[in-house]
Amino acid sequence: MPTFNFISTSAAGASNAAGANEAHTHRIELLLALFVLFVAAKLGAELFERFRQPAVIGEILSGVLVGPAVLGWVAPSIATETLAEIGVILLMFSVGLETEPRAIWAVGKTALGVAVLGVVLPFVLGTGAALLMIPLIAPSTHDTASSSVLVPAIFVGVAMVATSVGITARVLADMKLLSHGSSRIILAAAVIDDILALLVLSAAAGMASSTGIDWSKIGVTALWSIGFVALTACFGPRLIAFFAPFIQRLKSRDSLFGFAIALCFGMALLAEKIGIAAIIGAFLAGMALADRSHEDDLMHKSETLVHLFLPFFLAGIGMQLKLDVFRNPMIILFAFVLTLLAVVGKLGGAMLGARNLGKRAALQIGVGMVPRGEVGIVVAQMGLSLGVLNQNLFGAVLFMAIATTLLAPPFLRRAFEGEHETTGEEHLATMEENPIDIE
Amino acid sequence: MPTFNFISTSAAGASNAAGANEAHTHRIELLLALFVLFVAAKLGAELFERFRQPAVIGEILSGVLVGPAVLGWVAPSIATETLAEIGVILLMFSVGLETEPRAIWAVGKTALGVAVLGVVLPFVLGTGAALLMIPLIAPSTHDTASSSVLVPAIFVGVAMVATSVGITARVLADMKLLSHGSSRIILAAAVIDDILALLVLSAAAGMASSTGIDWSKIGVTALWSIGFVALTACFGPRLIAFFAPFIQRLKSRDSLFGFAIALCFGMALLAEKIGIAAIIGAFLAGMALADRSHEDDLMHKSETLVHLFLPFFLAGIGMQLKLDVFRNPMIILFAFVLTLLAVVGKLGGAMLGARNLGKRAALQIGVGMVPRGEVGIVVAQMGLSLGVLNQNLFGAVLFMAIATTLLAPPFLRRAFEGEHETTGEEHLATMEENPIDIE
Repeated sequence: MPTFNFISTSAAGASNAAGANEAHTHRIELLLALFVLFVAAKLGAELFERFRQPAVIGEILSGVLVGPAVLGWVAPSIATETLAEIGVILLMFSVGLETEPRAIWAVGKTALGVAVLGVVLPFVLGTGAALLMIPLIAPSTHDTASSSVLVPAIFVGVAMVATSVGITARVLADMKLLSHGSSRIILAAAVIDDILALLVLSAAAGMASSTGIDWSKIGVTALWSIGFVALTACFGPRLIAFFAPFIQRLKSRDSLFGFAIALCFGMALLAEKIGIAAIIGAFLAGMALADRSHEDDLMHKSETLVHLFLPFFLAGIGMQLKLDVFRNPMIILFAFVLTLLAVVGKLGGAMLGARNLGKRAALQIGVGMVPRGEVGIVVAQMGLSLGVLNQNLFGAVLFMAIATTLLAPPFLRRAFEGEHETTGEEHLATMEENPIDIE
Repeated sequence: MPTFNFISTSAAGASNAAGANEAHTHRIELLLALFVLFVAAKLGAELFERFRQPAVIGEILSGVLVGPAVLGWVAPSIATETLAEIGVILLMFSVGLETEPRAIWAVGKTALGVAVLGVVLPFVLGTGAALLMIPLIAPSTHDTASSSVLVPAIFVGVAMVATSVGITARVLADMKLLSHGSSRIILAAAVIDDILALLVLSAAAGMASSTGIDWSKIGVTALWSIGFVALTACFGPRLIAFFAPFIQRLKSRDSLFGFAIALCFGMALLAEKIGIAAIIGAFLAGMALADRSHEDDLMHKSETLVHLFLPFFLAGIGMQLKLDVFRNPMIILFAFVLTLLAVVGKLGGAMLGARNLGKRAALQIGVGMVPRGEVGIVVAQMGLSLGVLNQNLFGAVLFMAIATTLLAPPFLRRAFEGEHETTGEEHLATMEENPIDIE
């Protein structure tokens, strides 16, 4: 009875000696992953900081090292992916806490231009390159009829579109530049970028399925996601101000912190339900609470949580890297071309959108939008599971996502070198350093 | 090809349209579980605190409510179990941070008596009751030959043995009584208790398998676990003192906090590898750092982590409750008898061990050892997966584990009512309140 064996793998029905120590084995696997990833990421960060390099790179590379690509001590599992997901959600929540909604509205128009051009250019370049190169890479699995190359090529293009703002936000937070003008444009553009990427992905997924593109569904998705973002950004802080007295009257310790976490998870859930990324919901939740980030030690508490969780997100990106598809030189070439076009496309598109701000600011914004990170990986995985991308194309797209994520931080640091916060508080601090102005 | 279908459930090999939105669905499930469990637990805690009842009860019952037993909004999954596991590990780590090794050594002898008697009595009572009642409950699945009843009965007895110190520690921490004399005896006894439970469980599992009890293996396990605890408690703080200067010289922010978390995960892993519970390792890691708990804001940071994670542990216990086996009145009776004997056995055994400390202290310690919580659940699950316990017996043991956990906190609060910390600092504070003594 083979059926019986498959059923008995569920916890309740298992009744064989092999499953005896299952809970124990699971716990050891979990603790090993926790320990190895956390320690490796922290050591990686330490090493890179010693050599004045961005800590995030050290943390991602530590994941490459201990993951399946090199040492194989830890492999991605549901447990590590859960922690990684919570890690990036909490990161974007704490970035939101440092971002005042007014500052984001003020840069909305520029951010829209940055996002739109930063989506169009990489998409066109990525799809074009894929159209030319897919027939050279995988002639055995894809016949050269243009229709069967078009959909995979479009999927490659879509994977080039989305920005992983988490990495950039982390680098800027490490440099204490989150309220810099360019940082605000990057954050606002990343939110718009995510909505655009969602719509492009919906269209591409429709093309890949037998039913074709459902334009009315895409229209509804667009309305929902724009409405969600706009309503939260507009009314979020006011709603929080209305509920705050009730929250402060609660008996539980740390009631505001508890409320903040609940809001973060709730908004992440809503955003994901609508179809935009969970991290956008978490970012908006943080932004709605930005006015109160110093009450109940909210900011420091969020940073403590990020400190614990983020290593799993960063090392988790590194763990995804697979090197075994790179035996074929054509795939290596394709991966490098994709990476090059991903950088050029995003940088060019974003700089074009921000050209009115001057060369330096445009460069800062352009570099900040380059990382594809986990968003690119998710699109690649979707293409794989839809059967549109084969393992070779998947490997190349994965390489592009991780390579852009590793490339951006050093350039980002150089682009922002010598910059200061441009907030009111900063001006005040500068004035206090020169007491002559005051006396 | 049925085989192909099973293989394609692995992420990399999947290539069907059904798996297209898999990542998206997983993320929604995860976020829903995070949001529902966190909010329900916090609301449960708030409600119970309003009525001056222990918050932990509210949090566990919230898990019963939203879990499969009642509303079915959330079910236990790898993700929720991961968070629950991390929750109880971090809880015991932060309890360890408040526990100085010297204070534990001082009560070692009494704690040994409490642990041994608190293990023997529940085991004898539980096994005895099971021997009498199993033939009445499940005549169809177990024939009445004494040998086939003995092993299940012993497993029921083993599930009655282990103490879930997490719940007690949480209640005492909420009352700010962790450094009370009785609390220290409870913590020390729980560590010894866990080692004894491990040895009893190893023997029982040996009886259940075809190979029989392997006494030499149990002896080795005993030596390892006693050695691990004794060495850590002895040399842990000294090793930390030796490494502290190196840690403080690290470039990374919050380096001591990062080191503390790494130590916590590492010691939990070691403990689990040896065979004692991960939470014992985490507790010892915290204890080794107790002298430094105020450096780098270590204590507050750990409490922030516990604040986020603990709801998943507490609500997770409640989520395990299954009510569907309770259609048979004999099982209800058995579950109640087990619960009664679990309380009487642990209370009586522990009080007997602590009889020299006076009635009040003995009662405090006895009540503190009553909860079986997740440890009882783990033993029950092991019995189920070994095929020793059927669903009916499993349901009754599960009920006992959850009922003892829910019963203890109110009595614990009553037993400790009006007590103050009995540390040196407390005496000092009392003296400062009466300045006449000093002047």
